[in-house]
Amino acid sequence: MNSGDASRIQELSGFLTESRFRKFRDVLSQRTRFVSVVLEDLYDPHNGSACLRSCEACGIQEVHIVEERNAFMTVEGVTMGSARWLDLRRHYSPDAEGNAMLSDEHSGASIGQCYAGLRDRGYTIVAMTPHPAADKAVAFDRLPLSGPVAVVFGSERDGLSETAMNEADLHTRLPIHGFVESYNISVACALTVFHLAGRIRNELLPEQWQLSGEDHDSVLLSWLRRSIRNVELVERSLSSEPRVEP
Amino acid sequence: MNSGDASRIQELSGFLTESRFRKFRDVLSQRTRFVSVVLEDLYDPHNGSACLRSCEACGIQEVHIVEERNAFMTVEGVTMGSARWLDLRRHYSPDAEGNAMLSDEHSGASIGQCYAGLRDRGYTIVAMTPHPAADKAVAFDRLPLSGPVAVVFGSERDGLSETAMNEADLHTRLPIHGFVESYNISVACALTVFHLAGRIRNELLPEQWQLSGEDHDSVLLSWLRRSIRNVELVERSLSSEPRVEP
Repeated sequence: MNSGDASRIQELSGFLTESRFRKFRDVLSQRTRFVSVVLEDLYDPHNGSACLRSCEACGIQEVHIVEERNAFMTVEGVTMGSARWLDLRRHYSPDAEGNAMLSDEHSGASIGQCYAGLRDRGYTIVAMTPHPAADKAVAFDRLPLSGPVAVVFGSERDGLSETAMNEADLHTRLPIHGFVESYNISVACALTVFHLAGRIRNELLPEQWQLSGEDHDSVLLSWLRRSIRNVELVERSLSSEPRVEP
Repeated sequence: MNSGDASRIQELSGFLTESRFRKFRDVLSQRTRFVSVVLEDLYDPHNGSACLRSCEACGIQEVHIVEERNAFMTVEGVTMGSARWLDLRRHYSPDAEGNAMLSDEHSGASIGQCYAGLRDRGYTIVAMTPHPAADKAVAFDRLPLSGPVAVVFGSERDGLSETAMNEADLHTRLPIHGFVESYNISVACALTVFHLAGRIRNELLPEQWQLSGEDHDSVLLSWLRRSIRNVELVERSLSSEPRVEP
């Protein structure tokens, strides 16, 4: 752990009420990266926003946003402020201005980059699809939790890209019993993260799914920074004071 | 069972392809009234529609729509045609033209009537609320399934009415682990029905939750009628033929 983070947390926490800081710690104790979410090319701002809100509500810290064909958009009235508490990691090919270069010609570069990063960190990548391939299919309630899991959701209209499907480790579908052939994407995301959030709490030890010490502090610090008015000014004035290192 | 239903089903099924009729039977075998849903005063058509779609997908047959303050509306692009497969039961005070008379002065008459009907049929009525009353609170994953359960969801803005809260048998809340204090209403509905649909399949015998013989046939007949073009003409011509009673 960075001891600078710990003392900065100490200093900044003084700018929050005690009950607010307790809330931060409570929420943080429920935070996980053991389950992360990947959203590929969602275009409906209501869906994107509802996904973020459900992830936040279920304690998911990390959401990957892949933008190849569509730009990801949110609506504040739907996210209910949840986006500020999440690590949103965008994956896209930048154009000359640094914005996402969108194209129907799906190169697979951004989803490939996203998957590679997750795989390096030990994630099993699970594509959520109504049509699992036979050699990758696993029952929804049997998703393996021997290591961290990233669940991948595709665009409303076209579903997951070929690359997203082919390069996933596993495919699974939500149980469905009616005439409709799929759930709304924001519902599918909620059902999945709620289910997995429940399973890790029931089946694993807290130290297996909670944020590690260093990660815990760095998230807490980022939350403090997003919650304190004029935090740059505050931090500048703190830095100019002599600080006692532990 | 009404033997007229059975022979009419036989006759009408000839107007569907074999695979379509098999789909009807498959879906019907997964249908339940053991869990029913009550939606009180939802006003956002996207939410209402998403609720119907999730209910249909989870095999819920019966959805009660209570309109005291707000008219229930749907969007076809979101329901994905699910409404035609459900029993939608509306509860409202009719005005002179027979439409729902809406008022912010919430009399509780329509929700009261809805609850009374459910209670007569043996349902335990469970209000979904972020604020369960201590004497009615039960943990979400401990909802009793000794008899049929109706889960009640309130309006996006105001939640459940006082009457809906006070007259429910039980209160429960969805587990939540983040800063946001609630799930979107369509997400809450989906999480609840998906969870209960899973539990009845795991914990009960099929004959406890499946539709009874008479009910099964009457739903099947209503689906056939909704699926055959010019079904009135078809049935009139069938009625004029001599029919062999079994």
